[in-house]
Amino acid sequence: MNIKQLFDIEHPILQAPMAGASTPDLVANVSEAGGLGGLGAAAMPPDYLRKQIQAIKQRTSAAFSVNLFSPASEIFDPESQPGDKFSALLAGYHQEFELGEVPAPGNLFGPAEEQLQVLLDERVPVISFHFGAEPEHVDAIHDAGLKVICSATNIKEAKILESIGVDAVIAQGSEAGGHRGTFIGSYQDSLIGTLALVPQIVDAVSIPVIAAGGIMDARGIVACRALGAQAVQLGTAFLCCPETGIPDVWRQTLLASQAGQTTVTTAMSGKPARGIRNRYITEVENLNEPLLPYPLQYAVSETLRKQATQTGNPEFMAMWSGQGVGLINPSSANRTHAQS
Amino acid sequence: MNIKQLFDIEHPILQAPMAGASTPDLVANVSEAGGLGGLGAAAMPPDYLRKQIQAIKQRTSAAFSVNLFSPASEIFDPESQPGDKFSALLAGYHQEFELGEVPAPGNLFGPAEEQLQVLLDERVPVISFHFGAEPEHVDAIHDAGLKVICSATNIKEAKILESIGVDAVIAQGSEAGGHRGTFIGSYQDSLIGTLALVPQIVDAVSIPVIAAGGIMDARGIVACRALGAQAVQLGTAFLCCPETGIPDVWRQTLLASQAGQTTVTTAMSGKPARGIRNRYITEVENLNEPLLPYPLQYAVSETLRKQATQTGNPEFMAMWSGQGVGLINPSSANRTHAQS
Repeated sequence: MNIKQLFDIEHPILQAPMAGASTPDLVANVSEAGGLGGLGAAAMPPDYLRKQIQAIKQRTSAAFSVNLFSPASEIFDPESQPGDKFSALLAGYHQEFELGEVPAPGNLFGPAEEQLQVLLDERVPVISFHFGAEPEHVDAIHDAGLKVICSATNIKEAKILESIGVDAVIAQGSEAGGHRGTFIGSYQDSLIGTLALVPQIVDAVSIPVIAAGGIMDARGIVACRALGAQAVQLGTAFLCCPETGIPDVWRQTLLASQAGQTTVTTAMSGKPARGIRNRYITEVENLNEPLLPYPLQYAVSETLRKQATQTGNPEFMAMWSGQGVGLINPSSANRTHAQS
Repeated sequence: MNIKQLFDIEHPILQAPMAGASTPDLVANVSEAGGLGGLGAAAMPPDYLRKQIQAIKQRTSAAFSVNLFSPASEIFDPESQPGDKFSALLAGYHQEFELGEVPAPGNLFGPAEEQLQVLLDERVPVISFHFGAEPEHVDAIHDAGLKVICSATNIKEAKILESIGVDAVIAQGSEAGGHRGTFIGSYQDSLIGTLALVPQIVDAVSIPVIAAGGIMDARGIVACRALGAQAVQLGTAFLCCPETGIPDVWRQTLLASQAGQTTVTTAMSGKPARGIRNRYITEVENLNEPLLPYPLQYAVSETLRKQATQTGNPEFMAMWSGQGVGLINPSSANRTHAQS
């Protein structure tokens, strides 16, 4: 099936859900413009998520998507504790910025099962997963008459997603910002450039392929269509839009950055993700100490990151970005928009 | 100037020079077919290089290119010695395969200045450099009425190459096989996917841009043209052709491999390069010991690699390959060709 019919959209362009940056305003405006807006809901408690979805629906009757992190990503040892060097580093930051106690490791996301129930209740037209998808969830989404998509970073993942019935697969190339969707094998082996990944996944599956990673303007969109993708998903290209919820310092950092300033690191959350390198990433990496498992690694820096966001300190924020960062159109940041 | 006029070629397709895999037969057949064949000459002593060029000229009157490694890459400390753990590993391999003494560190390449003189004498139509280019060489090539191109892996490198007068820049995306051309900054920061790198370099320079990395068939070629590249350079796509000089076991390994089996490693030569992971790469990386500088790291495994090639042992060969490996057309390996 044609992907525009599948999603009921005018243009085969998806706005990447970008947990922490997308807002109902951004989602609704992209969908109103004929693309598929996407809300990154991984960190939203179920009740808050429901209100966000209702806010989108108030602004548009068009299709949109909501993204969850796979429930499988919530499995971790709650007894895990940060290593000695990392504990000392965090304590030092808390002293430097007068932040009190370092938070205990805990889960920042989900519970995904409850989040999914909200999406089913609210009949979210397209539900997308990161870090893999479960067959029973795919079936439940289809039983509700909704669509489901998921990221793949290698060919094996794409084939598995097809076999459990997802409606389309997002081929996430190594250029992409934010968390790597890898759920089979090491992430290092799945840092495959979009130009190489997309045609290999297109050849391996018969469901529609959505290209993601490094796509910033019409050139990238046309290129990915030539590679065989039926649609494209852009994140970094939308990141400076006034509708996103990102702090101004993140926006200004993006506008001043080049591709080489991004790095794929596990220092921030415990899972590999691409963002702008800063003091926090460098100092944690330099410890050369095993990190906490995702999402505990993320949780222990929560106070630090919140304060950095409030005070505009880019050295301690998670500033996700793809390698297309140098192509961000500054006018996307200066555009005004009607906010309801 | 249109790149087809610049190089006097019918199709804007360059065959990547691939030191160790390209042969006069391959170069001549690509050029005869209307592309630009390329000979990887870095490891060829000047007299041998002259004979190879003359062999190409006997087979075709069309334009072709010859690639050298930058003279700057020949600067190293000749007193460098392998670390204790690496020495023991190498000695163990030499014992396992009854190879006698481990070679002393030395230079395997160049001398680039003498190689360049051969190219000027023989009036090689297009001279390409890897690891940067020297302004005086660019001028000497232009004084001889010849063309010069060089790889860039980031925007700064592309701008520098333009400023010293190269005729076109090869944007080498992270998907590419073989040595990373990086000559400014860390190679990790310059593993930028082709889809993100090409349009950023196109926007940064006014000379023609040649896209390289992950391009395997018409889809990749059309995609790169959409990104703004005037031409494309393909290596892995040609690697299984009967004209290449690669051992059969390398060919069979490529035909059975996926993108995730390639890795960018400094273990083989001392400089980062992408190839198929094997026992040698894994065991050297696992030493967690500083390596010899390029090209000394390469030199000490020369006996081991030669014997692996002769006996068809893929675990100790340098099997360069890009991330497009899964798209190699098996018929390229089975095609017959007239050899002179």
